[in-house]
Amino acid sequence: MGFFSKDIKTLDDLFVHTLRDVYYAEKQVLANMPAMLAKATDPQLKAALSSHEGETRTQIARLERVFEMHGAPAKAVDCPAIDGILKEASELAGEVADKQVLDAGIIAAAQAVEHYEITRYGSLIAWANMLGRSDCAQVLQQTLDEEKATDRKLTALAEASVNRKAA
Amino acid sequence: MGFFSKDIKTLDDLFVHTLRDVYYAEKQVLANMPAMLAKATDPQLKAALSSHEGETRTQIARLERVFEMHGAPAKAVDCPAIDGILKEASELAGEVADKQVLDAGIIAAAQAVEHYEITRYGSLIAWANMLGRSDCAQVLQQTLDEEKATDRKLTALAEASVNRKAA
Repeated sequence: MGFFSKDIKTLDDLFVHTLRDVYYAEKQVLANMPAMLAKATDPQLKAALSSHEGETRTQIARLERVFEMHGAPAKAVDCPAIDGILKEASELAGEVADKQVLDAGIIAAAQAVEHYEITRYGSLIAWANMLGRSDCAQVLQQTLDEEKATDRKLTALAEASVNRKAA
Repeated sequence: MGFFSKDIKTLDDLFVHTLRDVYYAEKQVLANMPAMLAKATDPQLKAALSSHEGETRTQIARLERVFEMHGAPAKAVDCPAIDGILKEASELAGEVADKQVLDAGIIAAAQAVEHYEITRYGSLIAWANMLGRSDCAQVLQQTLDEEKATDRKLTALAEASVNRKAA
């Protein structure tokens, strides 16, 4: 959608716009995953990122299903938020000299991504329910549950070992 | 800190860098608050944003206290993540024609900001504790609790009235 063109007139438009925003975000996250994986050292962190890479593919497919259910073309719109979050992650990775400290930074960066997704899926689910599309809400809820589980897994990993090694 | 200059060597460096990142973020959020407030229509949403504006000032002062406790100068570093999140909020606001739908979008945008802060304060607190600075962790925890409360308040407001009016 064009900026400042007042294309969003209804809650349904806002729902579709935000679906497209998250669709772009998930694709950018997937595209950035190999670089993040290559920079990680801790084997458990590598395994967690790798498992989330697979999950992200499923989440993209789920978004395509919601687009189809809703009768809107699966299209991405620029999402400056995820671009900023990923730019910050990449810049930070370039600034950290120590591998263990970098692992702690990678976990924090991955959690910033998760929290962005958690907030967006939360809004999408609330709007879908308000629009009488509990079928779409249910599909999006599966992804929200996964994002929250990934965030908790990263916290546990940081607290159990990665932050300790970095200190 | 200069990009790619490998200035972050220890977890302490990462802690201070992230403090500076959040310090910049909170200041940008405060600077953007009047514009967001001016665009909101729902009186309860306006009241929530206005109360969070005051809270943000307190949170900035709290960060300055943590800098002082930690013996690091209170300095901001660019935070492309918050810049992206705020850019997206401002672009979205320019695209929404209907005032009620805009209120729903403003809540979602404010929650994206909250979630960014929640994840960063969460990492900072974990690192402070790991560095033996539970005194800094306690100060940061007060802000984290406020950010989570603001996020819950915005969800409740969206569900109780704003989304309903937008639909």
